[in-house]
Amino acid sequence: LGGFILKICKFLEKAWNLAVDEPKKVIHGLKVGLAISLVSLFYYMRPLYDGVGGNAMWAVMTVVVVFESSVGATLGKCINRAIGTFLAGSLGVGVHWIAFHSGKNLEPIVLGISLFLLASAATFSRFMPTIKARFDYGIMIFILTFSLVSVSGYRVDRLLELAQQRLSTIAIGASICIIISMLFCPMWAGDELHLLICQNLEKLAHSLDGIHNKTSTAKDEACSKKMKGYRCALNSKATEELKANFARWEPAHGRFSFRHPWKQYLKIGASIRNCAYCIETLHGCVDSETQAPPHLKRHLNNICMRLSSSSSNVLQELAFALKTMKQSSKINLSVGEMNFAVQELKHALISLPNHNISIKNPSPSTVEASGNCNTEPITSIRASSSFMEILPLATLASLLIENAAK
Amino acid sequence: LGGFILKICKFLEKAWNLAVDEPKKVIHGLKVGLAISLVSLFYYMRPLYDGVGGNAMWAVMTVVVVFESSVGATLGKCINRAIGTFLAGSLGVGVHWIAFHSGKNLEPIVLGISLFLLASAATFSRFMPTIKARFDYGIMIFILTFSLVSVSGYRVDRLLELAQQRLSTIAIGASICIIISMLFCPMWAGDELHLLICQNLEKLAHSLDGIHNKTSTAKDEACSKKMKGYRCALNSKATEELKANFARWEPAHGRFSFRHPWKQYLKIGASIRNCAYCIETLHGCVDSETQAPPHLKRHLNNICMRLSSSSSNVLQELAFALKTMKQSSKINLSVGEMNFAVQELKHALISLPNHNISIKNPSPSTVEASGNCNTEPITSIRASSSFMEILPLATLASLLIENAAK
Repeated sequence: LGGFILKICKFLEKAWNLAVDEPKKVIHGLKVGLAISLVSLFYYMRPLYDGVGGNAMWAVMTVVVVFESSVGATLGKCINRAIGTFLAGSLGVGVHWIAFHSGKNLEPIVLGISLFLLASAATFSRFMPTIKARFDYGIMIFILTFSLVSVSGYRVDRLLELAQQRLSTIAIGASICIIISMLFCPMWAGDELHLLICQNLEKLAHSLDGIHNKTSTAKDEACSKKMKGYRCALNSKATEELKANFARWEPAHGRFSFRHPWKQYLKIGASIRNCAYCIETLHGCVDSETQAPPHLKRHLNNICMRLSSSSSNVLQELAFALKTMKQSSKINLSVGEMNFAVQELKHALISLPNHNISIKNPSPSTVEASGNCNTEPITSIRASSSFMEILPLATLASLLIENAAK
Repeated sequence: LGGFILKICKFLEKAWNLAVDEPKKVIHGLKVGLAISLVSLFYYMRPLYDGVGGNAMWAVMTVVVVFESSVGATLGKCINRAIGTFLAGSLGVGVHWIAFHSGKNLEPIVLGISLFLLASAATFSRFMPTIKARFDYGIMIFILTFSLVSVSGYRVDRLLELAQQRLSTIAIGASICIIISMLFCPMWAGDELHLLICQNLEKLAHSLDGIHNKTSTAKDEACSKKMKGYRCALNSKATEELKANFARWEPAHGRFSFRHPWKQYLKIGASIRNCAYCIETLHGCVDSETQAPPHLKRHLNNICMRLSSSSSNVLQELAFALKTMKQSSKINLSVGEMNFAVQELKHALISLPNHNISIKNPSPSTVEASGNCNTEPITSIRASSSFMEILPLATLASLLIENAAK
């Protein structure tokens, strides 16, 4: 029993830490509580009860199922639910009409076969990537509503009235969800995506900054934590795609217009990930046991340091440009600086072999140094390619800002 | 209109291709159709209808919402739904009792506050990573049932009967789902995870095999497609974690026991991903514009080829061992071969600088060659570390096989 209580205490402590770290999640919890309390008013107040009928249950259910943490996800689910219910309802009524007119004996057969076929086809279509990304929930609701309609109609015989009631209750639930999620501390999926990409860029910059500190054997707890930051970027693909999908449902808000090019963010995210792979390998080289002789280290250290700090500068510059959605004037300067550092390191490596003969053990150092070298050009290529991709975005954004100012 | 028809045709073609590629998905669609048709029998047949009442709707809903493509996901959702409904139902009845005994005026206040607090807390708890992984759906059902009970009880006053009906209909729906998903062509999440990891290992092996073909400038369409195979491993983290979570719900099946160490698969997956990062960087080096002078290439080509083909052998050996769940006897041999090749390349690199002075332009070649070199040791380290991780798994599996034979 003591162990159980201990477990609960640990769980509560974890929950508390999460709440302190991300108050947004607590706010979301409160918003859901508020929405459900509001919708249950429809039961407590008599006049509303009489208007909507016993189907008011559907309003509660809509709120519970549809309310997501970001505005985009909530809106997407609401629209999916409404369209799915409407389509399935009208199709269900149509099938019922056909079944009714085909005679008493054929009726259950027509209904059963149409149910089987439609449910199978709709379930299969949920596997299509394009549909899964945007309409997965809508198709589930379609299957649900169609089977309910085709099954219940057999008994109830007042389908149209039922359909109208269900649509109006869903509309009530959905509108409460949308209003609450947009008015009280709205959390936009687009904002989150934007922030995630910016943070990943900054983390990459910090990691690159940290590498030359490590080569100079200055070890620090906080520093090594910063260096590991690039790891977040490695596996962020799924999150980014999810957020981009949600963001596409969102109306204009803040600095983002309705048809903001969210797909560009995915491209930038992919370049960031490529960059992170390089840094991962670079870390592997620095961590490897083969250590360079100290005088060689001194020889290359300065150049490597300059290169990594200049590419880190470029990344930071890019992150800043992305964050403010303005073209930075300093960025061309930084890229030039970085390219210069790359050239410098290349020259240093060319002059290195002559140096090496005297010590007769160049291999590990070459490995380490050119580990640095061969990753950096790639980083720079990636960085400049991601820069190329950001450029249209940045110009687009500045155009939009100009338009708004007019 | 013509464009619209063209779009639909394209969509149907895509769907057809998907169906031909993965017939499993078609089978899943048919299974869902079968389950829904079966459950709607409860409406068509009078005696059953009288037994379960108008709540039979919940059975249909359970089937539609709960049926997932893998057995583990379906089972997990069923268990979640049952536990969530039961807990929320009993808690709802308890809160009702308290509210009823606190007087006419306080009743709505007690109900409203408890609803608000519980809904907020439960929604927040869905953000906790440990809960999100396994009980996300259960908590949603908990919120839904609790709000329905606490709201409807205000009107209906026959809560216990309602709760019993709902539980029995959910039990009917859930058992139909479980029986159909386990009896007709079951798709185990565990099998899928196992296959995914094996395939990723094999793809890595093919990619490594492909690299030395590329350095020797033999270009081929099918070959380059094989080489890109490692890309699948780069972003498989989310899929692997999802499948491992589902697999934990599954009972013993095939070669897997009930508490199969699914977490080991995640570790292997992580090592595979590390390996794939290295290969990604390696590809970057090979693709880079800086080309080595041809005689240097010849000098290193053989050794690099031997190294990459031997590490590819190790990976293939590992994939085979993982697939058959037996310890391979050849694996130690292959690892030894690979280590020998690593030593060989190191020696070749040490003897390289002397060679370089005569041509005075060693930099690009060193970059390329040591790009090969510094990645391979890491690959080998990773491969052997993943080998270390597979060992306990393989021994465990062989122990289990022995136990079963007894």
